[in-house]
Amino acid sequence: MRSRFQQGLDVLKERLLEMGGMAEAAIELASECYRKRDGQLAQQVFEREKMINDSERHIDELAVDLLAMQQPMATDLRFVLAVLKINSDLERVGDLGVNIAQRSLDLIQEPEVDVPVDIARMTTAVSTMVRRALESFLSGNADVAHAVLQMDSIVDRMKDEAFVNLVTKMKDNSENVRPYLDVLLITRYLERIADHATNIAEDVIFWVSGADVRHNAMRLSEEFDPDAPRSR
Amino acid sequence: MRSRFQQGLDVLKERLLEMGGMAEAAIELASECYRKRDGQLAQQVFEREKMINDSERHIDELAVDLLAMQQPMATDLRFVLAVLKINSDLERVGDLGVNIAQRSLDLIQEPEVDVPVDIARMTTAVSTMVRRALESFLSGNADVAHAVLQMDSIVDRMKDEAFVNLVTKMKDNSENVRPYLDVLLITRYLERIADHATNIAEDVIFWVSGADVRHNAMRLSEEFDPDAPRSR
Repeated sequence: MRSRFQQGLDVLKERLLEMGGMAEAAIELASECYRKRDGQLAQQVFEREKMINDSERHIDELAVDLLAMQQPMATDLRFVLAVLKINSDLERVGDLGVNIAQRSLDLIQEPEVDVPVDIARMTTAVSTMVRRALESFLSGNADVAHAVLQMDSIVDRMKDEAFVNLVTKMKDNSENVRPYLDVLLITRYLERIADHATNIAEDVIFWVSGADVRHNAMRLSEEFDPDAPRSR
Repeated sequence: MRSRFQQGLDVLKERLLEMGGMAEAAIELASECYRKRDGQLAQQVFEREKMINDSERHIDELAVDLLAMQQPMATDLRFVLAVLKINSDLERVGDLGVNIAQRSLDLIQEPEVDVPVDIARMTTAVSTMVRRALESFLSGNADVAHAVLQMDSIVDRMKDEAFVNLVTKMKDNSENVRPYLDVLLITRYLERIADHATNIAEDVIFWVSGADVRHNAMRLSEEFDPDAPRSR
């Protein structure tokens, strides 16, 4: 039989995955709001974000209670701390969904322009990153988490390409600066969601292997060795 | 005599304040880089960010070690968890300093334009928020933390005003879309630093009072009472 503490960990994991589902839904709805120019969908994103915020508070409390309840083993401790960080990342994903929906509402007020950016493709890439990051968390699979890190540079490139193309459009169609600017901001929000997926993947790797992959760090044991080789 | 655990908490606090100082320095240097159009200063921001990243890893490890070492009392537990969150916020402030420096480097390549935004004033407001947030952490003073929350809406307003003024400039001077866009992005980065200062202030309030002020939540005791009145 699993201990009360272990059961608590199970509940924590379950709640976090539910929250992940809500965050994914917020991205999808926001993207659909943009694509269909449908303001009703923005409202749904705003409601989803409130649910995500409630969920964040609830998960934080569960985690703190678990830590206070008894002294977890090293791996469990890292797991709970990873949950706290992932929780905070997912909450920001919800906020960014709201930002995308707000820009989409702004776009609905503006004349429809020819957009030189494949927002749908970028959204798919970003959603996939979030889903994979959560899968890696569910399975404790560091390989999946590493694959998420790889995808981040693809999204970064999409964002940079979008920037160049949108600046050109703005120069050539100065009457439509505002809608192009909205689209540009949407690409930045998507890229920030990708960053949060990256953070989640890094936290999974930290939890699973005890290694810190942030900032391309080597394993912690090497951190304070000035002669140790560093990647990049 | 203070216990080994208490001494650990002291060291943790000290390290976090040092990191806060580095983050503040990164904002100031980035802002100076923008103002003086001096690319050398951008390099200093990049170096500072590397130090901040190292510091983040170090503080995370100290905090995890403390939690693993012994079972902290409820207040100490909340303190260590607050440190972990603040640590992550300060690291992001360093990243945003880099973003500002990068946009400033881009601006140096472009013709100098008449900027309809008081970046210096906005930077001062944002730096003050970060400093006050850290002061509230140092003193455990929730009143100072609440004052930081008030300031956030001022910075938000500055950002919104900047958006409107910059869109107008872009429409009227389409040949200078790019520098205006750089300035617009800088105002977004500054606003995000203000958001991180707000997060820090919220974490201090959480640590000091055990109350969760995120998302304008009521005290936790009321969280699960559906009939309890909610602010906003």
